[in-house]
Amino acid sequence: MNIKLTLEFDGTNYAGWQKQPNALTLQEVVETALSKIFEQKIPVIGCGRTDAGVHAKEFVINFKYPKSTIPIKKIPNALNQLLPEDISAKKAEKTNPDFHATFSAKKKTYRYTILNNEHRSVFDKNYYHQESQNLNIAKMKKSAKIFVGKHDFRSFCSEANTKNNCVRTIKKITIKQEQNYIYIDITANGFLYNMVRIIAGTLIKVGKGKLTCNNIKEIFKNKNRIHAGPTAPAKGLCLIKLYY
Amino acid sequence: MNIKLTLEFDGTNYAGWQKQPNALTLQEVVETALSKIFEQKIPVIGCGRTDAGVHAKEFVINFKYPKSTIPIKKIPNALNQLLPEDISAKKAEKTNPDFHATFSAKKKTYRYTILNNEHRSVFDKNYYHQESQNLNIAKMKKSAKIFVGKHDFRSFCSEANTKNNCVRTIKKITIKQEQNYIYIDITANGFLYNMVRIIAGTLIKVGKGKLTCNNIKEIFKNKNRIHAGPTAPAKGLCLIKLYY
Repeated sequence: MNIKLTLEFDGTNYAGWQKQPNALTLQEVVETALSKIFEQKIPVIGCGRTDAGVHAKEFVINFKYPKSTIPIKKIPNALNQLLPEDISAKKAEKTNPDFHATFSAKKKTYRYTILNNEHRSVFDKNYYHQESQNLNIAKMKKSAKIFVGKHDFRSFCSEANTKNNCVRTIKKITIKQEQNYIYIDITANGFLYNMVRIIAGTLIKVGKGKLTCNNIKEIFKNKNRIHAGPTAPAKGLCLIKLYY
Repeated sequence: MNIKLTLEFDGTNYAGWQKQPNALTLQEVVETALSKIFEQKIPVIGCGRTDAGVHAKEFVINFKYPKSTIPIKKIPNALNQLLPEDISAKKAEKTNPDFHATFSAKKKTYRYTILNNEHRSVFDKNYYHQESQNLNIAKMKKSAKIFVGKHDFRSFCSEANTKNNCVRTIKKITIKQEQNYIYIDITANGFLYNMVRIIAGTLIKVGKGKLTCNNIKEIFKNKNRIHAGPTAPAKGLCLIKLYY
């Protein structure tokens, strides 16, 4: 039986989702907890990699449910007893056998949070990127439209990325301001390495008046990451919604 | 010249505001930073003591402005360069010579935050107290009214409290629910040691159906802390507003 489990996590103290030697990852912590509960090794599939320091309000994993006396509904509570405070299991449910947390996802929404204020805020200090200079939201909204649709996002992914196919479809970008916060929500069918953070860094440059809509169109054409804005810091990024 | 400075802090890592030997306090950290800026000892007066682990969205201090080349408006930025990330200076202004952060406060509002949900929430993990059992808000609201007004709050302050005068005036209590959160906001002319946390602990017992309005009236009459609810955990408490 295939189980779909929804997690929430604060990625501050982790080297991202994906297991790796010599670094603490979310996958390792979650698998260790599940293995304790079921008294056997439980490999899990996550809905995607996340970078070190990136957060998730909704992160889906799936795994094979072993013969067990623990009812599916009780798995989140059992897990939360074992998981550290910065990871929370929200919901477990039986799903169809071919459900795959990564490949079954039709689209995902990431949120990039900017505190556009001279003074920092302490309570959410790990969840925003601060920009002291006043950003022009109208300009940011206008240029955000250029990213929407099916494009080759080669210029907006990390140089380390060696994928041949950099075509992705951004379904929607919304930029909203609430008090001193600016939220950039990007929904796409898939994301390249660092894509949201580079788009956020580029839109911040637009907000500062250092890039125009025409510049962005050129950056797309040039197919070279070097011309886009900087990769915005990881701590401002959060995976907020998955669509299966 | 007397300076009024507004701070915000996450109290998680501190043994409260007030300086004490052998423990890291907020006052010590703030005084050390101010003393570095002005190159001399700067003793400050805080608007109140806060317990270990208690937070503040608005915390006012005052101190004597030494002859300095730093303009008053620049003090918050200068301070934020030196303060740790869990303390932020928001605003500095010249005030009248007899302004005293503690004694000039006419009233204060504290908020107690309860997450009334089976599963914990990770992003605000240091800022709420979790109650898994469903709380009856209507009952809590009804009994909250009993606390409003001028009363002897002897039954609702810590046993360690030896003050002869336990009469305080609660101006307002509001209880509101937003999604899974319950906020108890208490405004009073002054607070006794642990008073908000004991009232919160008592209201939680009401929400669980373990105490009634009549019980609370009796607890007031008995003038003994033993009959009130438990002291709710510090991390759910935040000083949110000061009235001068």
